[in-house]
Amino acid sequence: MTPHTDARPPAAQPPAATRSAATALPGRPCSIAAALQVLGEKWALLAVRELFYGNHRFDRIARNTGAPRDRLTARLRALEEAGVVERRAYSERPPRYEYHLTGAGRDLAPLTQALLAWGDRWLSPEPPVVLHHHPDGSGGSDDSDDVGHPLDAAWTCRTCGVEVHSPDVSLEVRSPGWDHRGPAVPVGDAGTGP
Amino acid sequence: MTPHTDARPPAAQPPAATRSAATALPGRPCSIAAALQVLGEKWALLAVRELFYGNHRFDRIARNTGAPRDRLTARLRALEEAGVVERRAYSERPPRYEYHLTGAGRDLAPLTQALLAWGDRWLSPEPPVVLHHHPDGSGGSDDSDDVGHPLDAAWTCRTCGVEVHSPDVSLEVRSPGWDHRGPAVPVGDAGTGP
Repeated sequence: MTPHTDARPPAAQPPAATRSAATALPGRPCSIAAALQVLGEKWALLAVRELFYGNHRFDRIARNTGAPRDRLTARLRALEEAGVVERRAYSERPPRYEYHLTGAGRDLAPLTQALLAWGDRWLSPEPPVVLHHHPDGSGGSDDSDDVGHPLDAAWTCRTCGVEVHSPDVSLEVRSPGWDHRGPAVPVGDAGTGP
Repeated sequence: MTPHTDARPPAAQPPAATRSAATALPGRPCSIAAALQVLGEKWALLAVRELFYGNHRFDRIARNTGAPRDRLTARLRALEEAGVVERRAYSERPPRYEYHLTGAGRDLAPLTQALLAWGDRWLSPEPPVVLHHHPDGSGGSDDSDDVGHPLDAAWTCRTCGVEVHSPDVSLEVRSPGWDHRGPAVPVGDAGTGP
């Protein structure tokens, strides 16, 4: 029931498996590419959505996402290896597991929220899900009368308190040999194509 | 050079192609699923990243993302059909095109920013790209001495001004026949599996 943002610092360093997944990617050195290496397959983020919604068992995640079982199994395993999801046994005989978000997984809340907001704005005339914000801390509990207010989230810079708009942001590329256009002075790249 | 948030209202209704893509998905009716139907393949968002960075030609996008050319062609076509990207001719003989973000495409800035922030935090000990914020409006111009300050973005609710944390958000499911657990009283679903 708590699908959203938790921007506190991470509790721990990411697992080694996750870090190694960030290296040896093609193209520009980039945290977006590294993140998509872990998350960039739609069943992964739909499984994460279900975990935010409180659905932790495989059958329910499969039913609610519509994911083919073999692909969902593969994505959950990859998310576990990347340190986004952890398995917890809830039965020993037979052995059965629930899936839960780790700290890194819960920190995906802004991402799922950004997807939801974009989909609501551009694809869904009648949003199938509406989020409510309870800044007094009562939120999410089923026995509370507090309905909060509709969440209207925007990126705001903590340093200056101003809402972030695209033209107000500039880019500093720190990867040796790259700038925003691509590799600096690339060999055999005198011109670009079609 | 402007990879980031623009949370203003959309300039126009989404194209029909985009809306129809949001229907007939498996699983829970959900704007996240609809968004991932358009964006949920990593080359799509990496192409969007390059367009935000000002790289509009196919060869440069292919080089900077590392995407196989056939898959990149397919993703750009899908993004165009979905109204996220538009092609503009820059040469008639031979016919050549540049790709540009539409309003719906520019509105993906919060999403790419959320991916970047998550990747920086969990995958990249030394962020390959650092964003600077120029709230006075000078940002991004190459001839400005203003270096701004490092962007430290947080989700904040416009209604109350409070930073959004996951436990403070609740979910209202408006899809008939569904709640946060899944289909209400689903047929043949007396229990869930492993």
